[in-house]
Amino acid sequence: MSNNIAFQSVKNLRSMLQRGEVTPVELVDTFAERIERHNPQSKAFITTTIDTAREQASRLSRGDLNGSSFAGIPYASKDLFDVQGVRTSAGSRAFHDRIAKKDAFAIAKLRAAQAVSLGKTNLHEFAYGATGENEVYGTAVNAYDPTRLAGGSSSGSAAAVAFGLVPAALGTDTGGSVRAPAALNGLVGFKPTIGRVPTSGVVPYCWTLDHVGLMTRTIADCADLLTIVSGYDPSDPASVNRTVENYPEALDQDISGLRVGIPSNFYYERADDEILEALERVKEYLVANGAKLMPVTFPDMEHSRTVSLTVQMPEALSAHSAYLQERGDLYSADFRAGLALGQCILAEHYVKAKRFIEIYRQQTNRLFDQVDLILTPATPEIAQKVGTVKVTRNGVNEAIGNAITRFTTFFNMTGHPALAMPCAMHTQGLPIALQLVGRYFDEMTVLRAAHAIERSDQFSIPLPKVDV
Amino acid sequence: MSNNIAFQSVKNLRSMLQRGEVTPVELVDTFAERIERHNPQSKAFITTTIDTAREQASRLSRGDLNGSSFAGIPYASKDLFDVQGVRTSAGSRAFHDRIAKKDAFAIAKLRAAQAVSLGKTNLHEFAYGATGENEVYGTAVNAYDPTRLAGGSSSGSAAAVAFGLVPAALGTDTGGSVRAPAALNGLVGFKPTIGRVPTSGVVPYCWTLDHVGLMTRTIADCADLLTIVSGYDPSDPASVNRTVENYPEALDQDISGLRVGIPSNFYYERADDEILEALERVKEYLVANGAKLMPVTFPDMEHSRTVSLTVQMPEALSAHSAYLQERGDLYSADFRAGLALGQCILAEHYVKAKRFIEIYRQQTNRLFDQVDLILTPATPEIAQKVGTVKVTRNGVNEAIGNAITRFTTFFNMTGHPALAMPCAMHTQGLPIALQLVGRYFDEMTVLRAAHAIERSDQFSIPLPKVDV
Repeated sequence: MSNNIAFQSVKNLRSMLQRGEVTPVELVDTFAERIERHNPQSKAFITTTIDTAREQASRLSRGDLNGSSFAGIPYASKDLFDVQGVRTSAGSRAFHDRIAKKDAFAIAKLRAAQAVSLGKTNLHEFAYGATGENEVYGTAVNAYDPTRLAGGSSSGSAAAVAFGLVPAALGTDTGGSVRAPAALNGLVGFKPTIGRVPTSGVVPYCWTLDHVGLMTRTIADCADLLTIVSGYDPSDPASVNRTVENYPEALDQDISGLRVGIPSNFYYERADDEILEALERVKEYLVANGAKLMPVTFPDMEHSRTVSLTVQMPEALSAHSAYLQERGDLYSADFRAGLALGQCILAEHYVKAKRFIEIYRQQTNRLFDQVDLILTPATPEIAQKVGTVKVTRNGVNEAIGNAITRFTTFFNMTGHPALAMPCAMHTQGLPIALQLVGRYFDEMTVLRAAHAIERSDQFSIPLPKVDV
Repeated sequence: MSNNIAFQSVKNLRSMLQRGEVTPVELVDTFAERIERHNPQSKAFITTTIDTAREQASRLSRGDLNGSSFAGIPYASKDLFDVQGVRTSAGSRAFHDRIAKKDAFAIAKLRAAQAVSLGKTNLHEFAYGATGENEVYGTAVNAYDPTRLAGGSSSGSAAAVAFGLVPAALGTDTGGSVRAPAALNGLVGFKPTIGRVPTSGVVPYCWTLDHVGLMTRTIADCADLLTIVSGYDPSDPASVNRTVENYPEALDQDISGLRVGIPSNFYYERADDEILEALERVKEYLVANGAKLMPVTFPDMEHSRTVSLTVQMPEALSAHSAYLQERGDLYSADFRAGLALGQCILAEHYVKAKRFIEIYRQQTNRLFDQVDLILTPATPEIAQKVGTVKVTRNGVNEAIGNAITRFTTFFNMTGHPALAMPCAMHTQGLPIALQLVGRYFDEMTVLRAAHAIERSDQFSIPLPKVDV
């Protein structure tokens, strides 16, 4: 049964459940067996909760599923999300004994939707880092080539879906931590508009840039998952009281007339040529389907990484200072060094960074007066070898984490919805991905265009050969 | 004609204009003559623009007024608001040559409403301070007793209305800078919900706590003015795209059933007894009119001033650092000392202050699950003598600026709409004021309750005897 199930979309699994071809318990058993087989290599999960999942699934198998798109469907969440009664390790020794008292907002929504949590996935400690390397829980690897990184910080969520251990997973995205690993693993990764999915119950890294993100195999699954986890929570300052939209409704609308902005300046010279070529084919396809490409002058991103870090480090420090005093020895040296950097940043500079961010947001908003979407590559590089420290491109030597998130970080600052999805295979056998960015709270248009691209065979990529 | 006009409400002046008893030019001339007579003592205005006002008024006198509630009505604005072609001094030598290129949002709205700007009012330099003392432009004084302070930072706006030099004025309120001087001068002072009136075109003091505020003689005028200046401006990050409400519509609704929260803990022990007694009479009146008083446990305000300053000083510093380098010698020693303090604040502590503020906001929001309004005194003290440095109350010695804003600062942090209005005279011959606080964007209920209080003769206070 495993091969019929492992790489199915949620939608297909739902049909199988509805037709009685499989039961929720059989889904749990199949994925549990796969986790047992693949976790030693993939390092996707930090904690599995198979017994609880099986109990929940048996209750579901005995009764009627409630009609939610995720009823009876197994999923996983990055080990920053609180799941009641389960440890939230945050990928750190420092949280080794932190048992969640209640569900995070998104987890509670999935529980109400009868989705079945199989466990908590690996990550870069406290989400600080884009490679997903973790000295405590091991480093999640790429399903297309296990000598390569899954990418991070939501490394385990990407590996879990890419290795066929769950059909969908939650992650968090503060600078690209969902989109980048999704891109490197040939998955759909979506960071909705800031405030669309409350971050309540998620261990904060940087509370003003953190977003909940989604990883799935297909755009339709992403739309379903977004509909479930969207909502309002007054305890999240970014959360807004809006109607939850039914995203799947938008998917089949045609994209004719859609104005797609192509940034004329986007550090293309520091991207892999094959990634840029793949993007050209996507552009041609969009035009062939009636979309209009429009060049847009993108805001200057020269200082955007510095701006983001000037906000990230003090916020992380502020969230961690109490723990640091109690158990600083349990933090990794890497994260402690980052927090030490944060200690040197003055409030004046933090405020200036926030003002930069506000300018970025307004400049980006103004682009959306001219276009409905912006299309960029998702990452400038494909997945690199585990252990890679620097990436060199056109003579510029750059820390790998900076390279991985170069195209994504900006949209955490501006808050716009941004989606990564596969669009080609690199000659090195690894996925290439694009990024679509939309207007505030216009996830609909992003999903609609992504779905149009997904429908075309020319952009589909082969599954990883993880079972060979 | 002066006595018929000087202390009239906007509403009455409007009726006089409509009945043809007076023309817009006559209004300008009357108030101009009063400004000439009273400005040397009151120090209300830094800059007058009588010629421009008279030109505008003659155009209005020749044609039909456009039906706006402020058509043909003179007003003034704190000298932080940009008025096209006029200097915005910000009360500082440092901005002595800063001519505004375009109108601030609120000024443009008033211009479109055919209101007639008579000039720019005095303030504590760059809005940094609650006494209104200004070594460059003089210190605005209290109309009820010119040996006493008008209070600040919108000192000149309060003095301008209280001395009968304009019927309404704009100010800004970052910690109480509209409500406190309004309270000390027997006026209505309203700080609407954060984001309700864009701050675009207003020289920032502290961009996340700054609010545009309104000063008028009556609640109806306040409601009219709010309807005019409310709106959406995407260049203000706090601004939200909402329908502008027609506030005057709410005024005559009765207050029966309204649940009014009375904080059981609010530093009452450090307030003037007569102010507390006046508040008791307001409570009795509300109950007699069908409102329900409910005790509420107010969030702990112990650290709220420190929290506010930890945000204010780095934000002010960030806004001023470029000017400081160019022309630091033109700043007053007092403000420079404040900015120097700001330089010592770490980003970590600023972020912690922001988290405190978010907790205050959520705690206050939760109070509004139980009540529709919160009633407090507006200030713990009546207007003090010019030159007062410290206030002593029940053995506690406090800087006068801290005392003046002790009851107001909190609501700049939480963002809730808060209104000050007179409710009694102190035996020392100075006004006593209450504060009404409402739910986010529920200015309607605040105005409705304020109007009910205003309707009762027992809370009306005599005019100041400025023309004796």
